[in-house]
Amino acid sequence: MKIDRIDHIGIVVRSIDEKLPLYRDFLGLEFGGIEELPERGLKVAFLKVGTTRIELLEPLNEKSQISKFLEKKGEGIHHIAYHVDNINEALEKAKNGGFKPLSDEPQPGAGGTKVIFLHPKTTGGVLIEMVEGQH
Amino acid sequence: MKIDRIDHIGIVVRSIDEKLPLYRDFLGLEFGGIEELPERGLKVAFLKVGTTRIELLEPLNEKSQISKFLEKKGEGIHHIAYHVDNINEALEKAKNGGFKPLSDEPQPGAGGTKVIFLHPKTTGGVLIEMVEGQH
Repeated sequence: MKIDRIDHIGIVVRSIDEKLPLYRDFLGLEFGGIEELPERGLKVAFLKVGTTRIELLEPLNEKSQISKFLEKKGEGIHHIAYHVDNINEALEKAKNGGFKPLSDEPQPGAGGTKVIFLHPKTTGGVLIEMVEGQH
Repeated sequence: MKIDRIDHIGIVVRSIDEKLPLYRDFLGLEFGGIEELPERGLKVAFLKVGTTRIELLEPLNEKSQISKFLEKKGEGIHHIAYHVDNINEALEKAKNGGFKPLSDEPQPGAGGTKVIFLHPKTTGGVLIEMVEGQH
C-alpha cells in the first residue's frame, strides 16, 4: 500500500455559504462548486489547494452523518483523507496493525472512489479516511 | 497574497513514540525526526506526505502550548497551516476580512519561517496557521 498525498481535509460547518468568504475569498482556494448527497444527509463543497482539497460538510437535516459531531463539538475539523493506490490492501494492513475500520469492506465514495474510515479511538483521536481513485 | 499548498497539519498526541506505528509504519509517511522546542514546551515530529506534512505535537510539560487542548479535548487534530508567499499581506488581509490574528505581528516559526495564527472563533472552529518561508 502506498500513500502519495492527502486527498482532502473534511471540515464540518453549519453553512457552506457562510464559510465561502473565508475559504474562497480570503484564502483564495479554487472553489469547485456544491454537491448534495441526500443519502448521507450532506451538502458538500470542495476547494482545491495545491494537490489536496478542503471539503466543507454541511448537514441537510438533523439525521445527517455529521449532526452528532456538530451538536457535540460544534464546527471544526472532522477528518483527514489519505489517497492510497490499493484500498483492499489498506483495509487488510489496518486490521493487522490494530487500526479499526468502520466497515468490513471498502465503501463507495464520491465520484466512483472507494473509501474506508478508521475508528478515532484506534488512531489517536483522528478520524482517518483512506481513498482509492480520483474524484 | 497567494496560498500554494497546505504546509502541514498539526496533530496533538500524548506520545510521539506511541504514534509512530500509525504514521510511519502503517501509513508509511516519511519520518523527518524529532525536535524539542523547550520555549514552547513542545516536542515535535514532522512526517512528509506529498507536498505537505503531518506535524505531531507532544507536550514536554504541563505548561506547554498544547496542554490545555489535551486536557479539554484529548488527542486530535489541532490546526491547519497554509503556506503563503507574503505573511504581512496575509496579516493585513485577515484583519480586513474579520479573521482575528492571535498576534499583532508575524511570529518566528520553525526553521526561520514567519507565522500567524487566526482565532478559531472567527474561522469556524478551525485554528488556521499561515506560514511564509520553507522549513
